[in-house]
Amino acid sequence: MFLKDCWYVGACSTELGARPFARRILDEPVVFFRTTDGRAVALHDRCAHRGAPLSIGTVRGAEIECGYHGFRYGPDGQCAFMPGHHSVAADVAVRAYPVIERWGWIFVWMGDPARTDPARVPDYHWIGDPDWAGKGDLLWVGASYTLVRDNLLDLTHAKYVHKQTLATDAVTEFPVTARIEGDRIRVERFMPRIAASPFFAALGGYTCPVDHRQMIELEPPASIVISVCVASAAGSGENIATEFRVINALTPETMRSTHYFWSLQRNFARDDAALNDRMYQMNRDTFLEDVLVLERQQERIDGDRGWAGLITPADQGIVLADRVLRRLIENERRGFSAVASASDGPRG
Amino acid sequence: MFLKDCWYVGACSTELGARPFARRILDEPVVFFRTTDGRAVALHDRCAHRGAPLSIGTVRGAEIECGYHGFRYGPDGQCAFMPGHHSVAADVAVRAYPVIERWGWIFVWMGDPARTDPARVPDYHWIGDPDWAGKGDLLWVGASYTLVRDNLLDLTHAKYVHKQTLATDAVTEFPVTARIEGDRIRVERFMPRIAASPFFAALGGYTCPVDHRQMIELEPPASIVISVCVASAAGSGENIATEFRVINALTPETMRSTHYFWSLQRNFARDDAALNDRMYQMNRDTFLEDVLVLERQQERIDGDRGWAGLITPADQGIVLADRVLRRLIENERRGFSAVASASDGPRG
Amino acid sequence: MFLKDCWYVGACSTELGARPFARRILDEPVVFFRTTDGRAVALHDRCAHRGAPLSIGTVRGAEIECGYHGFRYGPDGQCAFMPGHHSVAADVAVRAYPVIERWGWIFVWMGDPARTDPARVPDYHWIGDPDWAGKGDLLWVGASYTLVRDNLLDLTHAKYVHKQTLATDAVTEFPVTARIEGDRIRVERFMPRIAASPFFAALGGYTCPVDHRQMIELEPPASIVISVCVASAAGSGENIATEFRVINALTPETMRSTHYFWSLQRNFARDDAALNDRMYQMNRDTFLEDVLVLERQQERIDGDRGWAGLITPADQGIVLADRVLRRLIENERRGFSAVASASDGPRG
Repeated sequence: MFLKDCWYVGACSTELGARPFARRILDEPVVFFRTTDGRAVALHDRCAHRGAPLSIGTVRGAEIECGYHGFRYGPDGQCAFMPGHHSVAADVAVRAYPVIERWGWIFVWMGDPARTDPARVPDYHWIGDPDWAGKGDLLWVGASYTLVRDNLLDLTHAKYVHKQTLATDAVTEFPVTARIEGDRIRVERFMPRIAASPFFAALGGYTCPVDHRQMIELEPPASIVISVCVASAAGSGENIATEFRVINALTPETMRSTHYFWSLQRNFARDDAALNDRMYQMNRDTFLEDVLVLERQQERIDGDRGWAGLITPADQGIVLADRVLRRLIENERRGFSAVASASDGPRG
Repeated sequence: MFLKDCWYVGACSTELGARPFARRILDEPVVFFRTTDGRAVALHDRCAHRGAPLSIGTVRGAEIECGYHGFRYGPDGQCAFMPGHHSVAADVAVRAYPVIERWGWIFVWMGDPARTDPARVPDYHWIGDPDWAGKGDLLWVGASYTLVRDNLLDLTHAKYVHKQTLATDAVTEFPVTARIEGDRIRVERFMPRIAASPFFAALGGYTCPVDHRQMIELEPPASIVISVCVASAAGSGENIATEFRVINALTPETMRSTHYFWSLQRNFARDDAALNDRMYQMNRDTFLEDVLVLERQQERIDGDRGWAGLITPADQGIVLADRVLRRLIENERRGFSAVASASDGPRG
Repeated sequence: MFLKDCWYVGACSTELGARPFARRILDEPVVFFRTTDGRAVALHDRCAHRGAPLSIGTVRGAEIECGYHGFRYGPDGQCAFMPGHHSVAADVAVRAYPVIERWGWIFVWMGDPARTDPARVPDYHWIGDPDWAGKGDLLWVGASYTLVRDNLLDLTHAKYVHKQTLATDAVTEFPVTARIEGDRIRVERFMPRIAASPFFAALGGYTCPVDHRQMIELEPPASIVISVCVASAAGSGENIATEFRVINALTPETMRSTHYFWSLQRNFARDDAALNDRMYQMNRDTFLEDVLVLERQQERIDGDRGWAGLITPADQGIVLADRVLRRLIENERRGFSAVASASDGPRG
């Protein structure tokens, strides 16, 4: 049900401190910790001895010590020490998940370790790029990662869900185009000469009509970068141009809950710390409006598993995303590599 | 498991305001709202587009607008507007439940709309009748509607459950008679020359022995009117006569929970508002004593599905009610009309 | 899944007062009450009439009266009175569980009443013995009784779970011996010349090295007495000797929850009431540390039913306990007597 051979954001770097902590990912219990020399580690969160969660244990140097009977495991998952024993058999181990720490996030590979491919970490380079500034956070959503993904692939919902923030009445008047590039989905909408939404007006200072361009790029299963370009419309009497990147990394907790990592970056007023905080707070409030809808949508769908919704032109991106995801999961089940590179050209 | 072709009370009139609200009925999600011109509407609470509950949306004139992507539905359930579209296909719709508003309650027909029969709204004419006065309310009970029904069909429980209110020690000394009239069940008990129960003594002012008559009428599946006539016994030295109607409309939420709508009416001191409030409070407290027992009874029964209780003469009404209910549900499953009129004569 | 033909502690004597109370044991609902002349009674907690729990009823002399319709049951479970009836049929009854009250605990026999054997009440004679002093309590644990049992059969966990109390770093340096005697398991560990643990140092006043002996005796399914003998090591300059008995009576509530009755007894300073309270509080805090681990261990195991842990030499007692328990449950299922006496000699 999940694509496994790919990188998910498992934690924020700041979450890994002196104490290990537990997080469920793809319905597996994972313990994260940082060795005393600073390396991030992710292990299956169940001691091989009696099944206690390692996350209630203690970090000792490069190892984690089980809080029940003191078994110790290294970053590779091998048991390094069994109290009262002089040696440890090689098969005493817990599963280790490859991790890469980048852009303030801990990426974790939940699939076949033999296929781990560092080149396939999603591109979130805007975070930490000196040309960009912003801030992010983590939200828990009581809904499937596919419902969260779909929410981001059809932004017309902004008009109804985000009345006070992102809404622009015009959004439903402009159609979207959606296409597949390799396994990636791209959805675009261009809205010329519209009133700026409260959100972007407040951040960019627009008072006159703008040309507003949205480009949503999905890298399956659930990495979504939204590029928003807002510029004063020609002849509007203003001359402002701002860009935003909304980075969305959706990590399934279970089939019906999601760890939603996000970051909002902008390419202007980069040193304005107050704007940073304001933008963060506005975006967080906006996402919490989505959470409200998504959790209730999940509830309704739970009540009738066979139910399928209606497909409209605005749902093109969702249709393509579903199709690609099904194919990738099916391929992975058969033992093929999970995600093709974009250079394979269009398919679908 | 539920009888569907019948009227259930779905809401109190006062619950329908400017905002839609959700209630589960017969394990289906229903959204209730009132159009701006005051008409009560009940729809299946799930947008045909993406499955979001309509109950988090907004009423717009005669329509309800989904809070996710702005689809609008009229009182007949037809989608009247899809944002970004010029027309809407006829098959874009949600199920509409016929409703009738009467006596301060919203009756809803959960079965086949083609069989909707306004003449079959249960008779609760005492509510709003100038010869009667009283008040009612809504309780949620974590027990099957059949357990609530059975509670009302055997009033001997008053002696044990309602020690401070309805109890009269004599109640177990007098047998009941139960009979079927058409599909209706009638259970009667006459208790001559007994001490008035605390409840009726307080309301009617009795200090001497009374003749107390109870008549319980069940209209399947779960509409119960209890007529209570209390009169000073001959030669008791008092001369008071009072009547009460306890109206009980039980609406299954799920197989193990019930929306319990009730109203308590009296035929005396009709202008006494303080008595109204006192009678309401006493009755509510009494019903909450029942809720306590019913929820624990449900728990016990849940633990052992095959279990069947003991049948005593006081349970005659329950036996008949179970028999009629099984027959009606079976008939409905086969496509027959659900409830025969009383003029069909006795069966069972 | 449970051994039934044996005595479990069902309640503390102090829990049985004027009001009946409910407890789930071996996943069956049980009501406990004390007759007005002081006899402890345990019945199936479900009225034979309508299934209401008797535990919301009232004690009347030697009988319990159902709180719904007034049925009364005696200590043998027979219905003694049905309101409105002159006689009661012999088959109107609820199941009665044999009980024995001893050492401040109510032992209850959950199996075949015909096999009830008072001689098989576990030996907890230290409670109430004038040569011993101490105190006990009841804890609820959200984990299987076998996990709680295993916790007690391998005390090396003290070093990791009870760092501030029972821990002695040396514990993992000394192996255990485990053996079967009849159906009983005995696990022993002798730790000569070690530093006294904070717990025993505080209670016994040790400042010098001690010889510390642990003997754990399991009487299946889940009665465990731990004998702890701590004595100043020869030549240590101190001359103190203290003994403790930790009595653990584990009563399954469900397959994944346990009523944990315990008592901690000592053979010195018997009149020191303050020491009593201090020892009680320290032990309770220690057990709460176990509860934390056990409940999370249960969670992890729930997530993967097929999972089996690793067996180490320290787990010998657990392996034997599992083997005996399986045999006894299998025997009981076949109709054999459940627990052999110790005089039958070793088996396994």
